[in-house]
Amino acid sequence: MAQIEMNALSVITCGSITVRIFLPGMDKLALDDSGHTKKYPVVWLLHDDGESSVQWLASPAERLSEKYGIFIICPEQHHALCTNMKYGPKYEDFLKDELPGIIKNNLPVSTDPKDQYIGGIGTGAYGALKMALKYPGHYKRAFAVNGILNMEEIFRRAVNGEELKIPHTKASLEAVFGDFNNFHGSENDLLTLAERDASQKKDRYLLILEESDPFRADNERFAALEKSARLQIIPDGSDCFSCQTSLPAALKWIFK
Amino acid sequence: MAQIEMNALSVITCGSITVRIFLPGMDKLALDDSGHTKKYPVVWLLHDDGESSVQWLASPAERLSEKYGIFIICPEQHHALCTNMKYGPKYEDFLKDELPGIIKNNLPVSTDPKDQYIGGIGTGAYGALKMALKYPGHYKRAFAVNGILNMEEIFRRAVNGEELKIPHTKASLEAVFGDFNNFHGSENDLLTLAERDASQKKDRYLLILEESDPFRADNERFAALEKSARLQIIPDGSDCFSCQTSLPAALKWIFK
Amino acid sequence: MAQIEMNALSVITCGSITVRIFLPGMDKLALDDSGHTKKYPVVWLLHDDGESSVQWLASPAERLSEKYGIFIICPEQHHALCTNMKYGPKYEDFLKDELPGIIKNNLPVSTDPKDQYIGGIGTGAYGALKMALKYPGHYKRAFAVNGILNMEEIFRRAVNGEELKIPHTKASLEAVFGDFNNFHGSENDLLTLAERDASQKKDRYLLILEESDPFRADNERFAALEKSARLQIIPDGSDCFSCQTSLPAALKWIFK
Amino acid sequence: MAQIEMNALSVITCGSITVRIFLPGMDKLALDDSGHTKKYPVVWLLHDDGESSVQWLASPAERLSEKYGIFIICPEQHHALCTNMKYGPKYEDFLKDELPGIIKNNLPVSTDPKDQYIGGIGTGAYGALKMALKYPGHYKRAFAVNGILNMEEIFRRAVNGEELKIPHTKASLEAVFGDFNNFHGSENDLLTLAERDASQKKDRYLLILEESDPFRADNERFAALEKSARLQIIPDGSDCFSCQTSLPAALKWIFK
Repeated sequence: MAQIEMNALSVITCGSITVRIFLPGMDKLALDDSGHTKKYPVVWLLHDDGESSVQWLASPAERLSEKYGIFIICPEQHHALCTNMKYGPKYEDFLKDELPGIIKNNLPVSTDPKDQYIGGIGTGAYGALKMALKYPGHYKRAFAVNGILNMEEIFRRAVNGEELKIPHTKASLEAVFGDFNNFHGSENDLLTLAERDASQKKDRYLLILEESDPFRADNERFAALEKSARLQIIPDGSDCFSCQTSLPAALKWIFK
Repeated sequence: MAQIEMNALSVITCGSITVRIFLPGMDKLALDDSGHTKKYPVVWLLHDDGESSVQWLASPAERLSEKYGIFIICPEQHHALCTNMKYGPKYEDFLKDELPGIIKNNLPVSTDPKDQYIGGIGTGAYGALKMALKYPGHYKRAFAVNGILNMEEIFRRAVNGEELKIPHTKASLEAVFGDFNNFHGSENDLLTLAERDASQKKDRYLLILEESDPFRADNERFAALEKSARLQIIPDGSDCFSCQTSLPAALKWIFK
Repeated sequence: MAQIEMNALSVITCGSITVRIFLPGMDKLALDDSGHTKKYPVVWLLHDDGESSVQWLASPAERLSEKYGIFIICPEQHHALCTNMKYGPKYEDFLKDELPGIIKNNLPVSTDPKDQYIGGIGTGAYGALKMALKYPGHYKRAFAVNGILNMEEIFRRAVNGEELKIPHTKASLEAVFGDFNNFHGSENDLLTLAERDASQKKDRYLLILEESDPFRADNERFAALEKSARLQIIPDGSDCFSCQTSLPAALKWIFK
Repeated sequence: MAQIEMNALSVITCGSITVRIFLPGMDKLALDDSGHTKKYPVVWLLHDDGESSVQWLASPAERLSEKYGIFIICPEQHHALCTNMKYGPKYEDFLKDELPGIIKNNLPVSTDPKDQYIGGIGTGAYGALKMALKYPGHYKRAFAVNGILNMEEIFRRAVNGEELKIPHTKASLEAVFGDFNNFHGSENDLLTLAERDASQKKDRYLLILEESDPFRADNERFAALEKSARLQIIPDGSDCFSCQTSLPAALKWIFK
């Protein structure tokens, strides 16, 4: 078992980026692979808004990278909501193109789309599902833990001055998405993306959440719109605030 | 000698913040101070845009904290340019109020304004001087290393599609400052702040930069507008890309 | 919630030390405490051999520091087994004297023995119980998670060339304890210390472990020798390899 | 430019190891290398005793990795003095075999001996030269910054109770080397290794140090014994306590 903290320059986000990476120890990294031709599958993992990649240190990610012989790569994204910000960095492009480029140049990871998986928690789950829906050729499967999927409703509350349950404001959401009136039906509107998805491949999305999750209805709505999504409810408290149940379940589903 | 990396939640910036802190070792932290009443001076140090607090690890900050018996506190600010962003976190409020609150609650630092100093490099220098000019009662002295002080000119170039020398774009500068047409004369226009400064206290600002610094003219202009500023030119290359000459000189000036 | 990584020089261990600290966020650190006279209780937490303080990042320590309004302080100790090594640093002295000195000079922690608690996992549990037994005036309570308490048996196996279940060898154990023949009955022999303990204060030690823990018998033996110890068995797997059940239970017991 | 902090398990040293790695940014890592067959030269860099790999964060290592298109890899070694300890981990084996194995499995580094360089500062320089002398087929060149090369004299002083200039004691040196009487002429006696070196390849070792370095005489003695060593004296203070002059000079020499 090993973990890496990488600090590097990103051209697309115009700055220093921090990425935490969990990888198998020596015994899983095939030591007899003298030509070093073996490339490992990747799970891209997106933290919640208000958190950072430090969030994943508390999860079972390192142990699971060992168990499955994979790289789990956790970039930071501040408040970008996995989006090419109207006023700010093009985080979506960063995640789609630049980061995989940096990683494949440095680590023995596969670049084959069938070895790419993406997941996230909270607003990171919104980002993970959006990436998988917009770029179906890039990722084989995607999962959401406690997903905050209905960004239109969040934005609407912000515009109306109602209390949000995520660390954003009207201004910070406008910085990401631009004007609220243009949000519905846009390429950042996850529920619209789900509705429009024609492929409806089987068993492509997993939505996993605790029973009393406050955003459960939106997850159910997503699952109703997107036939390839499966909902998995876990008992309240079973995640111990750190994906102790959900992340193992998600990776079991991915690598079944 | 010691260094701390602190990750904490910030209410004002709506998220996880990273702060690096350099502090003296045991012999400078008065060990016979059994009541722990001694409080240490603080130098707040702002990194350049496109960098992070990691930038200061390469500088002599840790050694200087030991030499002077002070805390050097280096928050991260991403692309906020030390400003209450139009579309984004209120970084100026964070730096003025919330961060000092977090720090004073955790570390034995003085809260007396006469023990507060602020400095920065590049765009961080812009931030440091802006804080000192806008909140003269909060900081005793301020310094700029290779200061990028004429943000109006940077913004103008961005609006005109000319090449910038900082990792920003028209959109990212609008996210910080709002519309370009409102910038001149605003409270984010450092040169206007300098011009208006009525106090003109003696020896309050130090601008230190290498001989051929590309932004030297703007530093000279600031020094011409602000009588309490002193310009110190150091030989090209003497900073070794890591404040080897400038930071010792700045702290020598501060604590003379 | 916040966490700190501190790198500092230690005179006693002759080198650079790394300490991870979990502390409450702003709302638990009394903000109206303008004189900063409030001092917080401390739980000293010792990692397992073969691990480092990184181990605690995966535990609920940060969340629990918030819940109870305490500082949880996790020093690194490499292979020192919380002992003044025969051939190596005097880690016991470091933990007893130097580290608390460094910490109290830098952080708002109580130095009152009634606010000091110590715990550990695996061999770190051996260390925690040893400290509490040898220095009863320094700590109010101590706990062991999956404690590896019978160091004599470990050492005996090493001397006999049998397989150990901890990352040590005969030579590395001799480096810590000196000759095996002098171990039994020494001040590093935890079971002897327990047997000799005359105070037998009520409810002073908690031994918490999963049902099938391979070292369970030694924990039961310790509990039989030390009347002030209480054994708490938790279901197999309930700790999720990261103290998800044991650490909350231990802190609940401490602060009941 | 990028930097990595890796925490991994090491079988040989029986524990968690920390390694800091400096590597070029995207433009130096050939992006058109679609087969990822390019492998980069490595400089192994050993910190001083009493320090950790954090020491190199303050050096120009990151900038130089960019300049030369190389990986600079800085393992931690605590007090092992780059030696298979009598009482402790086999650090020499770790550095010679296990660490290169971990690295080559994870990063695009060359394993060709002609792409391997090793250097160190203080006692790390002792380690670097020892590795290069004992394993001439493993490294093409080696360098010492402010080398502490006469370990016999250090050990003799420790045995005699005289003041050392390194953070060790008689016991800690015995833990590393065993009995003092067996040191002279052993494979840990660097001056003997230099004297015996039959190859005397041209321009293989660089000893670089400030003019008034307290260990200068031992460096001169090494250079007299080892014909392939070159001494380079730099002005006092020019290293700014952080290899600002020596490390660039050493890499210029390596890659000339």
